[in-house]
Amino acid sequence: MGKGAPTLTEIKLVEVGLRDGLQNEDKILSTSVKKKAAEMLIRAGLKELEVTSFVHPRWVPQLSDARELAESLPQEEEVCYRALIPNRKGLERALDTPVQEFAVFLSASETHNRKNINKSIEETFPVLEEVTDLAASRGKRVRGYVSTVFGCPYEGEVPLENTAAICERLFEMGVYEISLGDTIGVATPREVKEKLKALTGWFSADRLAGHFHDTRGTALVNAYVCLEQGVTTLDCAFGGLGGCPYAPGASGNAATEDLVYMLEGMGVRTGVNLEALCEVSRMIQTELDKPLPSKVLQSEIAVAEKKKGENAD
Amino acid sequence: MGKGAPTLTEIKLVEVGLRDGLQNEDKILSTSVKKKAAEMLIRAGLKELEVTSFVHPRWVPQLSDARELAESLPQEEEVCYRALIPNRKGLERALDTPVQEFAVFLSASETHNRKNINKSIEETFPVLEEVTDLAASRGKRVRGYVSTVFGCPYEGEVPLENTAAICERLFEMGVYEISLGDTIGVATPREVKEKLKALTGWFSADRLAGHFHDTRGTALVNAYVCLEQGVTTLDCAFGGLGGCPYAPGASGNAATEDLVYMLEGMGVRTGVNLEALCEVSRMIQTELDKPLPSKVLQSEIAVAEKKKGENAD
Repeated sequence: MGKGAPTLTEIKLVEVGLRDGLQNEDKILSTSVKKKAAEMLIRAGLKELEVTSFVHPRWVPQLSDARELAESLPQEEEVCYRALIPNRKGLERALDTPVQEFAVFLSASETHNRKNINKSIEETFPVLEEVTDLAASRGKRVRGYVSTVFGCPYEGEVPLENTAAICERLFEMGVYEISLGDTIGVATPREVKEKLKALTGWFSADRLAGHFHDTRGTALVNAYVCLEQGVTTLDCAFGGLGGCPYAPGASGNAATEDLVYMLEGMGVRTGVNLEALCEVSRMIQTELDKPLPSKVLQSEIAVAEKKKGENAD
Repeated sequence: MGKGAPTLTEIKLVEVGLRDGLQNEDKILSTSVKKKAAEMLIRAGLKELEVTSFVHPRWVPQLSDARELAESLPQEEEVCYRALIPNRKGLERALDTPVQEFAVFLSASETHNRKNINKSIEETFPVLEEVTDLAASRGKRVRGYVSTVFGCPYEGEVPLENTAAICERLFEMGVYEISLGDTIGVATPREVKEKLKALTGWFSADRLAGHFHDTRGTALVNAYVCLEQGVTTLDCAFGGLGGCPYAPGASGNAATEDLVYMLEGMGVRTGVNLEALCEVSRMIQTELDKPLPSKVLQSEIAVAEKKKGENAD
């Protein structure tokens, strides 16, 4: 961190649990449970929610209720819903819903992009441009996700130049913010620091976001390094939701609870009520019938169980 | 981190899994299992092992085989075994064994010290001095642990002045290194940074160590902040072993695997073989019959399971 604590307005938490968190979960949750989770997340103080994805239902069965969920969400001032959009067709479906913002995605490594999107990186750009053009014509903002910035499950290390070139193209298309993804959770703090130092030299830090997975326990320290480098938009998922298809059973996204705990402890007011946030995670944990990875969540649960035991004595 | 990566000799990992990691586990492991774990930890490359505690067996049943374990350990060059010592009587029992080094402990907060040691902080010093004097007369080194440096389960915030005054007394007694404990895992990076900045102004950074618990997910980021402040001795437990009596079921010590993964990714050669380290944790996980918290361990296991599944197809 620099000299002063970043103020509330300088830190932006993007809650991606309902999309990135759930998309690899086998057990399909009902639309009403997802809607309830969104309502509870808003009550806990989160303002930016990525709620679903308008990819083909066959690709991600968990999110096949995208339209139904989007239409059921409460319209609240100061709350922004976002959906992931693979192509123009997806955006057309999404534009009819109350979702306010969209996100496009591609990978910084060729092999991962091809396996994920079935196109080369170069072939992907026109597809994304159709989305950003149509969104712009409707006055809608588009965010960009770049995957495998810190490592690819097929290629290993990914040159920074790939990411830089992709960011340049995305910004040219009118994307307002780019989320840099450690898709498989391999990043370590020195690499994050070095890559962000270079990227924030080329692009404005307030148009970049950090998106870390905790597969190897480094999500929080990488988020901390982001803040030190002036990148103050962080993606996170309540409960630490989010399986990894390359390591099924391993940890998910940076847990919103853990991030909020760290930030508040650093004097950053996040506006998020931790207790209310843990309630959402407890509900989804019960629905998925397995403990979620957030340490703050599990320690809250352990303390509550202990108190219950003591009261019962 | 400063400009260059710390070199191998600058980072010291103190493996406390067999002592701090196991002491709150209900299921008692056999001496032969602990011995095997110690041997495997050494094979994995760890050099400093805190293996047991010579407290009264009634206090910590898991470690009641202290003498038996200590006498069974293989004597290896460059490997140092350490035991926790509560008082002169404990040291007398330990001095007959091949354990080379000892550690004394107290808390930075009065209430925690009283609940843990049944004495005020001031009353504790003479007890520790008896230990350091006797150890010195036998040419043995003594480490110091200060608990609750970053927060107390009874008193909340703990003034830095408490810790500073205790460190001064411990160094006067001849303790060669002091491990600063986040006993209940509440520390966040800014506090760690500020406290270490002050403490390294008063004491030499190479005589201080960071001892973090991952109860709220911040152990690794706090360890990272230690390195940034020049404190390069870090305590850790294989598998992330170590329950917390104040939140049973919550996470334990900073996981050695996760720390090694982060450090190696930062260009620091730790000398530890991650695969061999995960093997020890897998063995103890099986013995304790529950998953251990290390994320690197769980992701290794997940990847191995996936490969096994693919080969079976």
